[in-house]
Amino acid sequence: MNQGKFIPQGKFIVIEGLEGAGKSSAINVLREELDAAGIEHIENTREPGGTLLAEKMRALVKEEQPGEALQDRSELLLMYAARIQLVETVIKPALQKGAWVIGDRHDLSSQAYQGGGRQIDADIMSSLKQIALGSFKPDFTLYLDIEPRLGLERARGRGELDRIEKMDISFFERTRERYLNLASEDSSIVTIDASQDIDSVQADIRQAVKVWLAQQ
Amino acid sequence: MNQGKFIPQGKFIVIEGLEGAGKSSAINVLREELDAAGIEHIENTREPGGTLLAEKMRALVKEEQPGEALQDRSELLLMYAARIQLVETVIKPALQKGAWVIGDRHDLSSQAYQGGGRQIDADIMSSLKQIALGSFKPDFTLYLDIEPRLGLERARGRGELDRIEKMDISFFERTRERYLNLASEDSSIVTIDASQDIDSVQADIRQAVKVWLAQQ
Repeated sequence: MNQGKFIPQGKFIVIEGLEGAGKSSAINVLREELDAAGIEHIENTREPGGTLLAEKMRALVKEEQPGEALQDRSELLLMYAARIQLVETVIKPALQKGAWVIGDRHDLSSQAYQGGGRQIDADIMSSLKQIALGSFKPDFTLYLDIEPRLGLERARGRGELDRIEKMDISFFERTRERYLNLASEDSSIVTIDASQDIDSVQADIRQAVKVWLAQQ
Repeated sequence: MNQGKFIPQGKFIVIEGLEGAGKSSAINVLREELDAAGIEHIENTREPGGTLLAEKMRALVKEEQPGEALQDRSELLLMYAARIQLVETVIKPALQKGAWVIGDRHDLSSQAYQGGGRQIDADIMSSLKQIALGSFKPDFTLYLDIEPRLGLERARGRGELDRIEKMDISFFERTRERYLNLASEDSSIVTIDASQDIDSVQADIRQAVKVWLAQQ
């Protein structure tokens, strides 16, 4: 695709959803569809993370610290510090070279988990988003919607839960509600019913990706 | 001092200045004066830092990372994440118990180094300060003013320089200028000429502390 004089900017596609919603399988489907369309792409392993420094910031967010509670606003600032590293040193350079980027979570996760789940003030959320990202946003987002109890049940089957995954169920209910509200307001976000059986979920994802790709 | 029914809130005193300005000696003088006045106090070892998590954040700011540049805005967010941990888990609880707190650097350092030195946008600086601190600020700040070349010469005598201390001299000149401007606008900040010989600097600090203590 980069044979012309002008290299078209790549597209940034993000998979979002609660724990156990099936983000990894969705990334597999997305990867297959991009490969089938002959589109060069890279994958962010995860957010927060995806660079040496961002992974160290992730560790501070995920670990439980004896005797010192990570403050909600500190957590939020760490998330955004990690996101700036990833966007500036990985995502933007890839897009500028014409590669597409698949992201495992991005800013919508902060809006849902910290804004919705932790109920951090809307002014703080929008200030930090502006500071960290300006007008940068994904071209396309697949939000895998699942009832928190079902998602956590699936996630628990995979082993230990981290600091955030141990939160009360009401935290995840607020997070899901924020996800749904934000998805309903933004035409670049497609909501997938992830509570279906795996074949139906994958078929829905494949269909949504095909429809969107056809418009590009 | 805590024998009455009501425990008076402690005071927060901060020492500020460039590398090599003599902050450690200033803290010694301050400690002696508070002890002489019979005032119970604690000391923040340093900012960023002073808690388990804040020290881990500090390490990310100070280390040089191979192959990945820490972005200026990420650095700023880490500084504020560390400051929130210190203020919420150490400084405010101490002040509420009536203890006074001596701080080795605080928000003025971010304003001077990141706002002045790194020339980060004023709107970003004021948004983050508001998010992290709200109306919380030191009761009294001693700013030790020194010409950057002289300060760095003194600091270099002490050994290895970290990532920030290796910056160009113009970075420190912009930092000093911002320190001086902010000090001139805020009556709670007293500027000390730290380029004098050590005895004169210490005498000036002692005098400034005595004058301020007499007003409390």
